[in-house]
Amino acid sequence: MPLPSTERLLLGPGPSPVSPRVTRALAAPSRSHLDPEMVPLLDDIRERLARVFRAGEGAATLAVSGTGTAAMETAIANVTEPGRRALVVVTGYFGERLVTMLGRYGATVERVDGEWGRAIDPARVSEALSRGRFDIVAVVHAETSTGVCNPLDAIARLAREHDALTLVDAVTSLGAMPLEIGAWGVDVCYSCSQKGLGAPSGLSPVTFSARALDRLVACRSFYFDLNLLLDFWVRRKDHHTISAPLVYALDAALAEVEEEGLDARWQRHASVHESFVRALDGLGLSLLPPPGERLWSLNAVRVPDGVEEAAVRKRLLDRQNIEIGAGLGPLAGRIWRIGLMGSGATLENVSRLSDALAEALAGAGQPVR
Amino acid sequence: MPLPSTERLLLGPGPSPVSPRVTRALAAPSRSHLDPEMVPLLDDIRERLARVFRAGEGAATLAVSGTGTAAMETAIANVTEPGRRALVVVTGYFGERLVTMLGRYGATVERVDGEWGRAIDPARVSEALSRGRFDIVAVVHAETSTGVCNPLDAIARLAREHDALTLVDAVTSLGAMPLEIGAWGVDVCYSCSQKGLGAPSGLSPVTFSARALDRLVACRSFYFDLNLLLDFWVRRKDHHTISAPLVYALDAALAEVEEEGLDARWQRHASVHESFVRALDGLGLSLLPPPGERLWSLNAVRVPDGVEEAAVRKRLLDRQNIEIGAGLGPLAGRIWRIGLMGSGATLENVSRLSDALAEALAGAGQPVR
Repeated sequence: MPLPSTERLLLGPGPSPVSPRVTRALAAPSRSHLDPEMVPLLDDIRERLARVFRAGEGAATLAVSGTGTAAMETAIANVTEPGRRALVVVTGYFGERLVTMLGRYGATVERVDGEWGRAIDPARVSEALSRGRFDIVAVVHAETSTGVCNPLDAIARLAREHDALTLVDAVTSLGAMPLEIGAWGVDVCYSCSQKGLGAPSGLSPVTFSARALDRLVACRSFYFDLNLLLDFWVRRKDHHTISAPLVYALDAALAEVEEEGLDARWQRHASVHESFVRALDGLGLSLLPPPGERLWSLNAVRVPDGVEEAAVRKRLLDRQNIEIGAGLGPLAGRIWRIGLMGSGATLENVSRLSDALAEALAGAGQPVR
Repeated sequence: MPLPSTERLLLGPGPSPVSPRVTRALAAPSRSHLDPEMVPLLDDIRERLARVFRAGEGAATLAVSGTGTAAMETAIANVTEPGRRALVVVTGYFGERLVTMLGRYGATVERVDGEWGRAIDPARVSEALSRGRFDIVAVVHAETSTGVCNPLDAIARLAREHDALTLVDAVTSLGAMPLEIGAWGVDVCYSCSQKGLGAPSGLSPVTFSARALDRLVACRSFYFDLNLLLDFWVRRKDHHTISAPLVYALDAALAEVEEEGLDARWQRHASVHESFVRALDGLGLSLLPPPGERLWSLNAVRVPDGVEEAAVRKRLLDRQNIEIGAGLGPLAGRIWRIGLMGSGATLENVSRLSDALAEALAGAGQPVR
């Protein structure tokens, strides 16, 4: 089976584009995790991930050998057991996944449901917290299914006031949107290596605050057991065989983040997003979330009435070599999900995509009836 | 932090060497798992993995987005729950890990313990099976900690006779040692992408027989849930973002396996192992397991009395740029673990390693007292 031989512009919800430098890093000569050349690299990656999370003092930060969903399960599996009560903010597909996964690990789950396409009002969380005792408040910061940014700072503050751990999905915000784990008092946060960070998928950051480390449960999973992962990352004990190419790629991606500067990187994502919103406006297209609630990294674009969304995506792919994403769940057919993330967040891509969208809407966007 | 820039000969227990072709495949342009160029590649990989396992009809085979330990947890998490009884053959470190992980998933575990460095006598398994009812018989085929090959064919036959599922760790045998999942009647088998297959770590094969599929439990894990993984691999449903470079590398590694032919590849591992045993004999070194019980892929070499094993490993690494592995658990300090696996299983490497061992033993191998 021939492998892809040409670049495709990846502007879907993920994977995000991988820069040439990160791609080159994949091919560096392999080493085992005990190798004297690998050990300092792994130490370095832990420290740098903690800085990208802006984790607080005493936090434990590492990368799970799996995708963002593996990091999500690591986050949950180490603080959840039967008897623990979780309040989950659900404003989209990945909020639903939090409910599912917390339930699988035995938590008693209560939900605060919000409209798909809107940020949650923190007053709703406050109200729910006042009605009962919760060990965990779980929320998706950047809801990839709706393009919405939830008010994490306010939610984490409320959780602290009620002595609950804040557990956060930052899969689509880390490296792309302001995220201050330490300053905001977030306790458990997971993300992925692609999207905002720009490495390939497969080695996913997770961080636990000192407070979370005091409240760990006996983890049922072996692969996701934080104590075993710390044994591996910190104490060099046998646990699994980490993927050397993914370590190298994450190292290179983190170097790109650092050279740009985290604040500058956030600002780039903001500018590119704003430019894209203006371009959409010129095309008569609008976003699902209102201003002020939007992600910069992932744009949920309403499919105009009478336009067959799949035909537009297919035409973009076939004619323009650009991938964008479809809606999930109740938003299937109603939105496109367009990621401008990591090295893909450029004004050049906004321009290329806008032209391509105009062409595709003209060509495939005829009313379907 | 500079990445490694020179090749190192990886002859430890893993990761095994990655061939230039597989390394090049890592850099192919990224695609999402829904991309029309990725979909047939994923279908193809499933079919080819089933052939490498020699899986029987109706088996479900795929690759887990994680290391061999992730595939191990996938194997266990989908057939284990409280109330299920497992008989575990323990002849080394990874047999112990089976006990641990089965226990974490709630199984009632009984053990058949054998000497570390010897294969289990199937009569011991038969005897244990006659004493009670078991849902699962779990065994490590290729015990990476001791260099021993357990008699899987006989054990799987006994398990069938007692209507138990056979669950097998083939991390160090797939692609390197005869393994006939279908013909032997093995029900659940997991391996890794490195070692015998020769891809980088991170995308790990697992297969479930039709019989195992009839006896799945409600999987507690979300990431390792076989039904969700099949939804992803077969029905293209959202579950996780698979790592494109690892897919490409596994594709290339499987192409190398197929071009060589599986039987020829096993034979190459056998010849290289035999050549290495002769070379060891010439150096006055011997293997821990007796003839007939030895892995071809992983050689457990006794550290001679008075030799400081770590000094020899360090000298091999520093002066000869060759990695070999240390012993685990009770075998720490007593053996070296030397892998001749995948593209590393060559007569040239035997020759290079034997010369290097001779030099290292002469230089660092002085009696320590």
